[in-house]
Amino acid sequence: MKINGYNIDLENAAKTIKKNNYKRVVLQIPEGLKNHVSEFINYLETETNAQIIVSVDPCFGACDIVNHEFQHMDVDFAIQLGHTPIPDMENHWIPTMFINAQSDLDVTKVVEKAIPRLKGEKIGLVSTAQHLHTFPQIEEILVKNNFIPVIGEGDDRIESKGQILGCNFSAAKSIMQEVDSFLFIGSGNFHPLGLKLITKKPVIVADPYTNQIRDKELGELKDSVLRQRYGAIARSKDAKVFGILVGIKSGQQRIDLAYNIKEKLVSKNKKAYILALNHFSSSFLESFRDVDCFISTACPRIAIDDYMQYKTPIITPVELDILLGLKNWEDYLFDEINHLVL
Amino acid sequence: MKINGYNIDLENAAKTIKKNNYKRVVLQIPEGLKNHVSEFINYLETETNAQIIVSVDPCFGACDIVNHEFQHMDVDFAIQLGHTPIPDMENHWIPTMFINAQSDLDVTKVVEKAIPRLKGEKIGLVSTAQHLHTFPQIEEILVKNNFIPVIGEGDDRIESKGQILGCNFSAAKSIMQEVDSFLFIGSGNFHPLGLKLITKKPVIVADPYTNQIRDKELGELKDSVLRQRYGAIARSKDAKVFGILVGIKSGQQRIDLAYNIKEKLVSKNKKAYILALNHFSSSFLESFRDVDCFISTACPRIAIDDYMQYKTPIITPVELDILLGLKNWEDYLFDEINHLVL
Repeated sequence: MKINGYNIDLENAAKTIKKNNYKRVVLQIPEGLKNHVSEFINYLETETNAQIIVSVDPCFGACDIVNHEFQHMDVDFAIQLGHTPIPDMENHWIPTMFINAQSDLDVTKVVEKAIPRLKGEKIGLVSTAQHLHTFPQIEEILVKNNFIPVIGEGDDRIESKGQILGCNFSAAKSIMQEVDSFLFIGSGNFHPLGLKLITKKPVIVADPYTNQIRDKELGELKDSVLRQRYGAIARSKDAKVFGILVGIKSGQQRIDLAYNIKEKLVSKNKKAYILALNHFSSSFLESFRDVDCFISTACPRIAIDDYMQYKTPIITPVELDILLGLKNWEDYLFDEINHLVL
Repeated sequence: MKINGYNIDLENAAKTIKKNNYKRVVLQIPEGLKNHVSEFINYLETETNAQIIVSVDPCFGACDIVNHEFQHMDVDFAIQLGHTPIPDMENHWIPTMFINAQSDLDVTKVVEKAIPRLKGEKIGLVSTAQHLHTFPQIEEILVKNNFIPVIGEGDDRIESKGQILGCNFSAAKSIMQEVDSFLFIGSGNFHPLGLKLITKKPVIVADPYTNQIRDKELGELKDSVLRQRYGAIARSKDAKVFGILVGIKSGQQRIDLAYNIKEKLVSKNKKAYILALNHFSSSFLESFRDVDCFISTACPRIAIDDYMQYKTPIITPVELDILLGLKNWEDYLFDEINHLVL
């Protein structure tokens, strides 16, 4: 079905429900599509005999799957809209189907516009789930303009070639040695920023929503974010009490990393608490008044994207190593989640 | 240990951890005690060899137990502070110990003060977990003043005689036919309000925190809340689309009630969606723009206590029956959670 500029293959979900005779189905919807909930429910209830339960809690990615609490409510099937699966994650509770929201925007115009801004000959092509299906068209344009498009394989956390997540840039890292620059198709700053910080290559953003190209602005943003990160580390120099945040969502549980961090801190005579959260909110953390600095092992976006929401500095595991003098600022690394033992 | 005017038997928790050689322990702390988190952790880490993980997500009662996600992080024991167990609930994932926070306030003075305000001879004595241990003292004062104290048994959801929860007043209902009035020991308005609405008996509040007695004010509050509830029902008279809210916390899952409500609504030609939430927040519900009225089957306090936070009316299951003409306003019942099949 077509909703708000996205093709969402709910037809396939309905087929699967009918084929397996599922009775109670939970539907996870990303924030941007939640105001279309009635269309999704009406379609599924018309096409199948299943009862649909909508999960209201915010869902920002495939790392956040429904759990046994839904199984306990006799839910026998889960549909997560707008995200692609994380291959090395498994839902032990309820069979789960991920249905991507493919943008129907024409990317050719904005890619043509990006052509004169590309650097070098070999161009690494990356995008988020919504635009991956446009890669063949983009490759064609690149070749026609005498570029060599390169699309990398990701690790176990990545479903499709050339796909990057906010927490995983392996599909770019696998080709960064061989390409001269990256072309990112999509919106927002977080993904291209990570791309630039991790690969240290020129990144050109072609945004099909605004039909704009960004490259220089990204360099400025990178500098400003690095200044902010440096500031967060500096503000925490005298911190005595640390709160190590662990996400309890299935695909964010870096508990072993949290224990490693705790050991490091204790060996440096710091106090450290391990704090587990499902939903991240600055107000939930404000109760922990004696914590001087939080270290987030959950979604890497929390420390960097949501930094301004938190009164107490919140840093990433790599940033802690810099703070403790175990790494140099020059060795700054963007936080990523790679293979989790699930 | 003594914290902020409460006796919290963390010593017993430490003993249990040592005896069972538990390695990773999750600690749930009610909001009011979270700023003492370091004292709890320091004590447990000094007394035992266990690693302590603090659960940050708000925990308002024993209905909210930690689940398999902590088990997956190899947590082998859970401690929930400030609440008493709900006997008919079981944690299938992690052995869980509830440690009450017993207030060390002297209740005798405020009970003496309440004596002239008590109605009749037989007095039903009720309280929340924090003050239950003071019942023998209170009974003595009542007897000395020629009253007959009566303390009722609750149902399967209630651990101690005379204990009421925001969602369960069975320990008062079991004696309401035989008593002339109720004496409630504790703070806040929600429990005595429920008590008054459910038992329809005079309720006298003896608040040991403020050392004040309230009775008439409670009648005024009851009238104002009932006006608000009537208003919420009236505002929803023309509602076409209903959102039936289901709490996914283990002790709040009234999913069968939700399906019953959906059937009722569909039979009245209304549209109804079942919406499941873990953490309730008005902002999470605002995405569901075409919902005209929410019906909460989760914690009964949400519809009544948090009513003002929600832009769309939020009503209880009984209030829906009134809205649909299946019950009269005169038959208004306060929403309660009784035995859940868990």
